[in-house]
Amino acid sequence: MSELLNNREIKKEKLKEMLKKLHSGEDEEKVKEEFKEVLRSISPLEIPLIEQELVKEGITPREIARMCDIHVEIFRESVKGAESEVKELPAGHPLRILYEENIEIMKDAEILNLYASSLLNLEGKNKVNVLRTLEGIVRGLKAIGYTHYNREEMIHFPYLERRGLNAVPAVLWRKHDEIRSEINRLLREIKKEDYEKIVEISQDVASRLIDMVFRENNILYPTLKILLSEGEFKAIRLLDDEIGYYKVRPGDEWSSNAAPIMPYEIYEEITPEQLMSLPQDLIEEMKSKMGDLKLRPDKTELIREGDVKLEDGYMLPEEISAVFSTMPVDVTFIDYQDRVRFFSGGERIFTRTKSVLGRPVQLCHPPKSVHIVNKILQAFKNGERNKAEFWIDMQGRKILIQYFAVRNKEGEYLGTLEFTQDITDIKKIEGERRLLEWS
Amino acid sequence: MSELLNNREIKKEKLKEMLKKLHSGEDEEKVKEEFKEVLRSISPLEIPLIEQELVKEGITPREIARMCDIHVEIFRESVKGAESEVKELPAGHPLRILYEENIEIMKDAEILNLYASSLLNLEGKNKVNVLRTLEGIVRGLKAIGYTHYNREEMIHFPYLERRGLNAVPAVLWRKHDEIRSEINRLLREIKKEDYEKIVEISQDVASRLIDMVFRENNILYPTLKILLSEGEFKAIRLLDDEIGYYKVRPGDEWSSNAAPIMPYEIYEEITPEQLMSLPQDLIEEMKSKMGDLKLRPDKTELIREGDVKLEDGYMLPEEISAVFSTMPVDVTFIDYQDRVRFFSGGERIFTRTKSVLGRPVQLCHPPKSVHIVNKILQAFKNGERNKAEFWIDMQGRKILIQYFAVRNKEGEYLGTLEFTQDITDIKKIEGERRLLEWS
Repeated sequence: MSELLNNREIKKEKLKEMLKKLHSGEDEEKVKEEFKEVLRSISPLEIPLIEQELVKEGITPREIARMCDIHVEIFRESVKGAESEVKELPAGHPLRILYEENIEIMKDAEILNLYASSLLNLEGKNKVNVLRTLEGIVRGLKAIGYTHYNREEMIHFPYLERRGLNAVPAVLWRKHDEIRSEINRLLREIKKEDYEKIVEISQDVASRLIDMVFRENNILYPTLKILLSEGEFKAIRLLDDEIGYYKVRPGDEWSSNAAPIMPYEIYEEITPEQLMSLPQDLIEEMKSKMGDLKLRPDKTELIREGDVKLEDGYMLPEEISAVFSTMPVDVTFIDYQDRVRFFSGGERIFTRTKSVLGRPVQLCHPPKSVHIVNKILQAFKNGERNKAEFWIDMQGRKILIQYFAVRNKEGEYLGTLEFTQDITDIKKIEGERRLLEWS
Repeated sequence: MSELLNNREIKKEKLKEMLKKLHSGEDEEKVKEEFKEVLRSISPLEIPLIEQELVKEGITPREIARMCDIHVEIFRESVKGAESEVKELPAGHPLRILYEENIEIMKDAEILNLYASSLLNLEGKNKVNVLRTLEGIVRGLKAIGYTHYNREEMIHFPYLERRGLNAVPAVLWRKHDEIRSEINRLLREIKKEDYEKIVEISQDVASRLIDMVFRENNILYPTLKILLSEGEFKAIRLLDDEIGYYKVRPGDEWSSNAAPIMPYEIYEEITPEQLMSLPQDLIEEMKSKMGDLKLRPDKTELIREGDVKLEDGYMLPEEISAVFSTMPVDVTFIDYQDRVRFFSGGERIFTRTKSVLGRPVQLCHPPKSVHIVNKILQAFKNGERNKAEFWIDMQGRKILIQYFAVRNKEGEYLGTLEFTQDITDIKKIEGERRLLEWS
């Protein structure tokens, strides 16, 4: 233990020396080269402790943040394989984006720790200022959950699941959620200004974030690299763009002419060669979760006979009708020539009968309001408006009636949607009621 | 004028005599026979005036209501053609139902007038009691609007429109709406207890209702009878049942093996023979509205190439996708095997990417809440539940997440619908904003 402390003492002194040199304006590249060894010797899990001590000794967070950047840069190399992977992959390749995001996450984890630790040595206005900064940092961390983690959960994991690799995605997702929930808890403690808890949870969040970087860099990404084809990465990149990235703007070096392959288009099984090259940690995880190594690939055909191909999925006509009937709203669609083409079944607020199919909408309205109907349609057709909404009281219920211009992806007018719902009960909803509270 | 008064005086005396006989327990059939002539001589527009005078002389509304029944029965015969039509048509034929409803409407118009008039001669508690009864009657009249009139507007009119007969439906609908609006105005005056206005508007509503009966019996129904085929009446009856009837339970004498014909399936034009048999009033109306007698039948084909046949209509796959994208809600559908089959595009609250298509829903949820997801699905599958709903706060917005069991018409479980919407703005909606206020 004393050796460890001494060791850290030395590292700390070295870092202080480095910061002074940076402070005095020495060339950053030269400084980096000189202190490369000591920086490399500091693990990402150790640096928060050193930083905390530096803060105690009066080094400002701003200076330490600068050190962080350099450390992260050095650290990239020390993350097993990661840097070489990044270098190997062309900018814009989905795997490279993941590695790049993880470098950002590492840095943020350190900064989080740093600011949290510095709180303990501050008083009064300074303390409050740092707390506000910390709050901003923590709020920013939430984006990891809905970009980087969300992409993995929604886009990358399905490619593994089709091959029967369910265990690792499940473990990672559970840990992602723990991190999300810890970040939320941290925000609540920041609101309460419970400094002891803030420091404690910040350190916990930081170490969880770093742990996840390691797991992803060492298990998930190598696995994806071994198993996925170019067409799969092509699809992933297209889908990734829909969700967005964490602090990274993907480069445009990588491009592929391969046809995108969706998870539901995969029927191959993992080959023995692939299995042998998979990270040992993955194999261990699978063994511990599944008891055996028997993979159960998912070869379900997505598309069935009679399926209607829609923009985002496939449904049978019977399913489409039933979905519309089930929705707690009335839907009616008129085409670009103002003729009623469809209305939803089920329990309706305003009854519709098949006799109105094909009928010009102008003949479906009380004659005295037809001129307004025409005005709205005109505004939809010439692109001036996309929505018109009304609400009325009917037998003690509040009814919301919304009209929307329906356009295709090219923006062309396809028709108008009438969307009617009874909002009486919705208006009364207060507080929260979460999935886990269901009974 | 004095002759008219005298005449009415005689009728009134006769009616009083009749009521006395009924009151003393004389056989109703015999009384009816005896007073047939005088009852027949009273027009529906005249009876309210006589009733009003009887009320003034102390006959109770209850006694007069009894007289009403008898009068209406007699009156049926005096409505030109109506009674013979009813007799000619088998019970349950759509036209017979319309005539039967009109008999009920005639009776209600009289009762309305009667109660309203009696208000003028009452004071104190009695007056208030009659007002409450009147309010109940008027509320009941609203049903004419959403049954009898609504069926004509939504079911019967389209059959005429396809043949190019647009003018008469438009005129009738406008008058229907005037009646609806007068009924609502009457209800407001009843709330305000403005007795003079109440009597005035009641008489107006009654006379409008009676006027409409005449127009329908003499113009609309004969026209339908001349033009429509058995298959069309078959379809009408099926659709009529969906909307419902005014105070009439259709008999089951009429049945037809003809295939139902929807308005959009009609391509025939009116034949010269048909045109010559149409009611003169209809021809006059058409002349005055259209300037000429040139019919412009609507022969538009409802079904286009590529159309998907849905329960209530036809849409192209592109339209279905665009409708889902346009709806101000997120929709996701999983099939009966728990696999994601479809999600709506457009602006979403919770991002979805195509990579989840075909994925078991259990793998699309944070692992810690999967057991709840399974519980809900189980309850949907075994029919215990049809709905599970949750609401959460997210970045200052209130998000409502509803799950519905999707079943086909036979009640079989087809899958589950996730229906998510941002209800923040809906919760703030107050008052009313009507179509006519649009700008």
